[in-house]
Amino acid sequence: MSQPLAVGIDIGGTNTVFGIVDRRGNILSQGSIKTKDHQDLSLYMDALHQGIAPFLDRVNGNGNKIKGIGIGAPNGNHYQGTIEFAPNLPWKGVIPLTNLVQEQFNLPVEITNDANAAAIGEMTYGAARGMKDFIMITLGTGLGSGIVINGQLVYGHDGFAGELGHVIVKEEGRLCGCGRYGCLETYVSATGIVRTMHELLKEKETDSVFRNSNSDDITSKSICDAALEGDQLSKEAVDITARILGKALANYIAFSAPEAIILFGGLARAGDLLINPTRKYMNENVLQIWKDKVKLINSELKESDAAILGASALVWEMKE
Amino acid sequence: MSQPLAVGIDIGGTNTVFGIVDRRGNILSQGSIKTKDHQDLSLYMDALHQGIAPFLDRVNGNGNKIKGIGIGAPNGNHYQGTIEFAPNLPWKGVIPLTNLVQEQFNLPVEITNDANAAAIGEMTYGAARGMKDFIMITLGTGLGSGIVINGQLVYGHDGFAGELGHVIVKEEGRLCGCGRYGCLETYVSATGIVRTMHELLKEKETDSVFRNSNSDDITSKSICDAALEGDQLSKEAVDITARILGKALANYIAFSAPEAIILFGGLARAGDLLINPTRKYMNENVLQIWKDKVKLINSELKESDAAILGASALVWEMKE
Repeated sequence: MSQPLAVGIDIGGTNTVFGIVDRRGNILSQGSIKTKDHQDLSLYMDALHQGIAPFLDRVNGNGNKIKGIGIGAPNGNHYQGTIEFAPNLPWKGVIPLTNLVQEQFNLPVEITNDANAAAIGEMTYGAARGMKDFIMITLGTGLGSGIVINGQLVYGHDGFAGELGHVIVKEEGRLCGCGRYGCLETYVSATGIVRTMHELLKEKETDSVFRNSNSDDITSKSICDAALEGDQLSKEAVDITARILGKALANYIAFSAPEAIILFGGLARAGDLLINPTRKYMNENVLQIWKDKVKLINSELKESDAAILGASALVWEMKE
Repeated sequence: MSQPLAVGIDIGGTNTVFGIVDRRGNILSQGSIKTKDHQDLSLYMDALHQGIAPFLDRVNGNGNKIKGIGIGAPNGNHYQGTIEFAPNLPWKGVIPLTNLVQEQFNLPVEITNDANAAAIGEMTYGAARGMKDFIMITLGTGLGSGIVINGQLVYGHDGFAGELGHVIVKEEGRLCGCGRYGCLETYVSATGIVRTMHELLKEKETDSVFRNSNSDDITSKSICDAALEGDQLSKEAVDITARILGKALANYIAFSAPEAIILFGGLARAGDLLINPTRKYMNENVLQIWKDKVKLINSELKESDAAILGASALVWEMKE
């Protein structure tokens, strides 16, 4: 029997991955091209077409139908269909991406930023199935977020809602890439926990596996690994990260009273190591009516699939 | 010609006010009863019926039709139709108010908390007409808020979303009525600015009209009046309030990217005195993409009418 299928494209600074996805989140075929090898946008579009076209031919041959194409990209603007001033992509300025893709494939196209795509992916295929109100937090180099309210992704007036990594959590705190001080992502992210560890190494005399190590060896992964093996200073770095995140989440709950908050990405992979203390601090700091009521859970999507799934999920949200 | 009309009921700790409202926000008739004189809920319901019934008779006599009844009340739970543990109302525990009102008037009834009612009122009749994304901040004894996203009031998973007065803005800050420390409303509200003035009088030696005054004479209104007349310490109290509010609003913008933030209530009545510095601090602290883009405006509803209008506006949102 023929079934509707979706194309998911995730554009990252290094690679662009894409795949054909069914309603249940099975990736039927997938491939990738190098984003950074294509400084020229029209050559990139050609390479993307060459990568995806064989998949589409096969789908059509099987009598199935592609419903549309969903794209997740940094600085993706859902309302405008553009990528705008993305610092880690090779193309500068405002790129009218959905128009370009639409012309090439003659299919409906939607775009959103990567954290929003993760939220929709989680709602469609993952831990947020059946939920109408939740917040997705993606912990990578920075901290991204996608907010779902009444079953709809929150875009706000201009399409840029959900910048929870840039909520200021500390007055005169750490300098952020955005030019301001004290943003949540300067503390809670892969780079944030590394900064915390460097500070702890300076401030404290506690012994640590990182005491004499090369600066390059201090990564969010090595800190989490060391914490799991009992390294005191690493445990402290994780605890500081969890406390700042837990308090921030307690404040976010006062905004949208979500059913759940879902963590995704590198730091979240540390599993219970980060999520358990974060939950404790969140419940210690939240308004009484929400104490022990809002779930804090890890994503259920496999990290290797999540980018394609998130992007593809945009297609199922399209109006007929 | 016959027209649809709505009943708006606002339940406050002292008075309950009610009125008949048309689509455009004209209050055709209004009245009130004393909330606090009716410790017995069934006697209160009788008094409410006696107050409103003559209006309904007149409406029916004119050939118009009442579409429903909207109620704004502290701790009003939209999903449950209840008032839950409202500290300033005479009835304890959980009151199934919409059921009681529905039985008495045989009309559809909806309830929400007072700040949400203010937001819907503003969207229906006031400064937020035509807006789909805005945040309403009510500055009274405390700080209430109603958040509108995609044209819908945000209730969240449990109906209690939008407690922006209880976002913690200062670690180990002032003790709040909620039992925690540093909530926004301990600084930004009628009581908050009075606390600030008392602190300033202790900390500073600056001369002030309040230097030798009775503690009862220090109110949010007298502080604003004195600031307008040039009292240095009062100006400082207003500036501190504006700075804390402006920074908090900058963070809220990162959540929902609203078109506007609307201020309502006692403190907001001070007009430009509070709103101008608040706007300055908001724009100084917001993420670059929103700088000078989000409107900060005063409510356009007359304060004496706003409670009835807000409650009545719930009726126009009812499904047919």
